[in-house]
Amino acid sequence: MKAKVVEIGPRDGFQNVKEFIPTEIKLQIIDGLVQSGFKKIQVTSFVSEKAIPQMKDAAVIADRVLHKYEDVDFFALVPNFYGARSAVAAGLKEITPVISLSESHNRANVKRTVDESVEEIKKIRQTFPDIRITQDIACVFGCPFEGEMPAEALLLLVGRLKEIGVDAFTLCDTVGLAYPALVERIFRAVKSEFPGVEFNAHIHDTRNMGILNSYVALGSGADSIQAAVGGLGGCPFAPGATGNTSSEDLVYMLNHCGYDTGIDFDKLLDAARFAKEHIDGNFSGHQIHISPNPCVVTQE
Amino acid sequence: MKAKVVEIGPRDGFQNVKEFIPTEIKLQIIDGLVQSGFKKIQVTSFVSEKAIPQMKDAAVIADRVLHKYEDVDFFALVPNFYGARSAVAAGLKEITPVISLSESHNRANVKRTVDESVEEIKKIRQTFPDIRITQDIACVFGCPFEGEMPAEALLLLVGRLKEIGVDAFTLCDTVGLAYPALVERIFRAVKSEFPGVEFNAHIHDTRNMGILNSYVALGSGADSIQAAVGGLGGCPFAPGATGNTSSEDLVYMLNHCGYDTGIDFDKLLDAARFAKEHIDGNFSGHQIHISPNPCVVTQE
Repeated sequence: MKAKVVEIGPRDGFQNVKEFIPTEIKLQIIDGLVQSGFKKIQVTSFVSEKAIPQMKDAAVIADRVLHKYEDVDFFALVPNFYGARSAVAAGLKEITPVISLSESHNRANVKRTVDESVEEIKKIRQTFPDIRITQDIACVFGCPFEGEMPAEALLLLVGRLKEIGVDAFTLCDTVGLAYPALVERIFRAVKSEFPGVEFNAHIHDTRNMGILNSYVALGSGADSIQAAVGGLGGCPFAPGATGNTSSEDLVYMLNHCGYDTGIDFDKLLDAARFAKEHIDGNFSGHQIHISPNPCVVTQE
Repeated sequence: MKAKVVEIGPRDGFQNVKEFIPTEIKLQIIDGLVQSGFKKIQVTSFVSEKAIPQMKDAAVIADRVLHKYEDVDFFALVPNFYGARSAVAAGLKEITPVISLSESHNRANVKRTVDESVEEIKKIRQTFPDIRITQDIACVFGCPFEGEMPAEALLLLVGRLKEIGVDAFTLCDTVGLAYPALVERIFRAVKSEFPGVEFNAHIHDTRNMGILNSYVALGSGADSIQAAVGGLGGCPFAPGATGNTSSEDLVYMLNHCGYDTGIDFDKLLDAARFAKEHIDGNFSGHQIHISPNPCVVTQE
């Protein structure tokens, strides 16, 4: 049984690191991820340098990986039309705009109403008809301001976005409020309402359910699971809070459960360890912290 | 749907803390656990003071909680006959001897062959016929020396122990090698081979599958799930390695999935925070580290 894991650490992980990570280190980490077997990697974000200085080398990163690897799908996050234009100029064939299911979070995040965001995505679609748009929808499993979001609102928003030409969707557990029963309900709902459409899961491990929610998403029809090498991430507003699910912990679990991820756990763990050696960040993965030879405990 | 969570932090969590935790602090943490709603708590271990000085107040702890709370089941771990005798003398009605499924781990852990351990348990059974014996079986899901263990060996060992009068069993993922497919296979096997017999799950979160494996164990027939407040624990031989699954993270997940745990998450989180304030240990729970109001991230 195949399971597709999409690596997003170079975007969602790196963007949470305060100190600028040298471009060459970023590229070496991406090399390690490709060598582990990932076929799809979110490599950067085309966002204003002022907002997220960490991503100021977006165009260089995109250019370098596109010229180095032909059989890997690289894509980038774009918060608005300008980001999309830069991503396309850098040669990317797939981009991820962001919109939130929650009006208050969308305003806090991109300073627009949901309607205005839909218009922005429409403009991106019309200007770049040949680019694949994989849309991030934030706060699908809960909003920090509005709490749990109605599934009907999600179905309506997906319908509107499909109509303007969005190709695929990633349902994001932006602040880690997802839980298994909800993940199952949401994925079954979208897959049943929009048969044949790609829906991916983007899960945060904030409440220790990252691996469980990813497992349940996969069993409920998600087409891929996003995860970040080393579990690198976090949140500038919540010290100690973890970021995305750790790719290597997720891959270890899936490989052991008989899923064919196509990813070599040992190589991925090496890539995670390399990242940890070179980045001063919050690595929430577990296996990155244990010695290769498991411990012997004194009792039970 | 009921789900029974058994708190074992005062034993498996505390025993990994180097500095002695004052007895009154231990008792206050147990108070918080009882007030959260736990009906069964492993409060201590009757082990040699030399081996684990942290547990030197075992008799005091047992005496105090037994006199304070009548409607809670308190039990303790006993590594051998002497421990059992002390536990019974302290007034406990339920004890947990330890044995390992793996010959090499049993020798490393209690310096006996598996046969010798079975004899020891038989002696405990015969000497204290009215005490409930809930047997810990270590390394069920893998041994640090021998790797994955055959299910047939487990069924044989359970059969032998049943025959000498053991009442119930706890299957322990001693070094965190369990994974969902294995957990399901093992629990289905024992529940089918020994219908009506109690089998509990004791899961370590070493490889980030604590919550997932607990969830799967429950769905595969486990009668209860053991967990430790705050995720306190670890392993002296593996710096950074986490201990048991965090009780509050587990309870949060189960309560959200419609299980009736009978445990109040907020009170439990308070107990975990109190423990963290007073103990210098490795708290691997997630929710204990995040601020009550979840973060707002800058992008998806």
